[in-house]
Amino acid sequence: MGGRALVQWEQNRRNAPEGVEADLYAGGSAPRDLAGIGFYQLPYMPSMAAVSDEHLEIIPRMPDLRVLQLVSAGYEHVLPYLPDGVTLCNGRGLHDASTAEHALGLILAAQRDLPRWALDQREHRWAAVPQRSLADQRVVIVGYGSIGRAIEARLLPFETEVVRVASRPRPDEGVHGVAELDGLLPGADVVVLVTPLTESTRGLFGASRFALLRDDALVVNVGRGALLDTDALLAQKGRVRAALDVTDPEPLPPGHPLWDAPGVYITPHVGGGSAAFHPRARAFVDAQLARWAAGEPLANVVREG
Amino acid sequence: MGGRALVQWEQNRRNAPEGVEADLYAGGSAPRDLAGIGFYQLPYMPSMAAVSDEHLEIIPRMPDLRVLQLVSAGYEHVLPYLPDGVTLCNGRGLHDASTAEHALGLILAAQRDLPRWALDQREHRWAAVPQRSLADQRVVIVGYGSIGRAIEARLLPFETEVVRVASRPRPDEGVHGVAELDGLLPGADVVVLVTPLTESTRGLFGASRFALLRDDALVVNVGRGALLDTDALLAQKGRVRAALDVTDPEPLPPGHPLWDAPGVYITPHVGGGSAAFHPRARAFVDAQLARWAAGEPLANVVREG
Repeated sequence: MGGRALVQWEQNRRNAPEGVEADLYAGGSAPRDLAGIGFYQLPYMPSMAAVSDEHLEIIPRMPDLRVLQLVSAGYEHVLPYLPDGVTLCNGRGLHDASTAEHALGLILAAQRDLPRWALDQREHRWAAVPQRSLADQRVVIVGYGSIGRAIEARLLPFETEVVRVASRPRPDEGVHGVAELDGLLPGADVVVLVTPLTESTRGLFGASRFALLRDDALVVNVGRGALLDTDALLAQKGRVRAALDVTDPEPLPPGHPLWDAPGVYITPHVGGGSAAFHPRARAFVDAQLARWAAGEPLANVVREG
Repeated sequence: MGGRALVQWEQNRRNAPEGVEADLYAGGSAPRDLAGIGFYQLPYMPSMAAVSDEHLEIIPRMPDLRVLQLVSAGYEHVLPYLPDGVTLCNGRGLHDASTAEHALGLILAAQRDLPRWALDQREHRWAAVPQRSLADQRVVIVGYGSIGRAIEARLLPFETEVVRVASRPRPDEGVHGVAELDGLLPGADVVVLVTPLTESTRGLFGASRFALLRDDALVVNVGRGALLDTDALLAQKGRVRAALDVTDPEPLPPGHPLWDAPGVYITPHVGGGSAAFHPRARAFVDAQLARWAAGEPLANVVREG
């Protein structure tokens, strides 16, 4: 294999293997000459709202395209543009370190009152209050895939107990099915939602599941906003706490009652895109280009061409 | 051994071993009858400023005292009250989980902008900005004792590199001596100060060491405020960041310039006393009473009686 490639980062252009001629394209105005491009790494733009879809719209003008490479995990938005015969690969795993890290940040923020200290600092107030801990807590991870595993690895040294839940039970891995979730919630101190959003997970965490939680339990959402029923959370009035990197609606508009809800801490969907993402994404694209040049099976194929 | 004991927590009274008669004393007015007390667990009071020293002043009125048990690591404040012939045991290790957990909270807060999101939430502002990460960072732990090890264990799954520094080098454990610190600082992304405060560590981190750090490096202090030179930090004007659970002066008074210094995040000395401390302290006192009753060697002896 081999041929022309369009890539986003200079490292990948520089490291292009023998037989691959790589050009840079980071979005915006497309290169004039799209003929001969066999491998296209779709530019990653953290703020999708700010850019046009030109990087998608040029796909049909690539007659020789064989591989469309994403560095995001989600790929639904690309399917309408995907020609027959083109293999689609996603960026599964590239955001794991970043997202898992942020999940721990949210949990520690909620358990150790980090938002309170930020507000007190602004007012020059030194006033310790008794602190919860993460140690000794039972954490139920709903969505035990690669990010769920990365969260678990970071939780265990904190002297926690982790309970694994996925859509289907996997007894050899100690993973419960979501059908068992209701029985697990009364024993949970922390619940982390990190499952994909599908029609069966939409509203996964609503009034009946909140009702099963202990007073002062914590629900963390680093998946998608619509996994959690916002009205059901508001109805808790602080009985159950929440730390949310994703919300429904998203972005959360000024004036929305969730902003001021007691026991709720909100970050603006910054879990996956931290600095940890970039070296992992560049290394993955390097490796993928090398596989393509050598005619080896590609990684992270989500649709064979 | 065995005899009368004074303990702070009901669990320890209830679990007192055969041959030990334990009474509760949580500070304040002392029991009338102090005769026969052989084991005294000095009450732990997170807010020392709010209480009298009566729990210390009753020590000379215990003619049969053999063991004075602290649940704090520090013991200097007790030495003036310690009679000859009484063995002093401290609470080394009981705060490790709590302090290490808070150290990670401070690091994640600084790397992932958690204080910013708390302030934005108050103003209903949803505005992501590019995020640093903890992944891939080189963290130098200055003070590689039991808390330093607990911090390391929690850091490693975040895909970090840890560099160990203690007062003296311990080559078999890969621990550098503090004499090597200056050579390690230019390669550090994060420096965690967790060494005891002594005359040789006072002002350990001052202007010359700040000058060795990269732009945007982070200094975390969970040890004692005076390890770090506050004026030298203020002179950084945000070039180097800091996350501080302890300060000099402490408490930090309203109007002090450190409150508003750029890149500085402050928590009010809440590292060691979270909920994680209590079950560990009660379990330790249970075990220590059992050792005392059985005539076995005590743990955490800091001065033999």
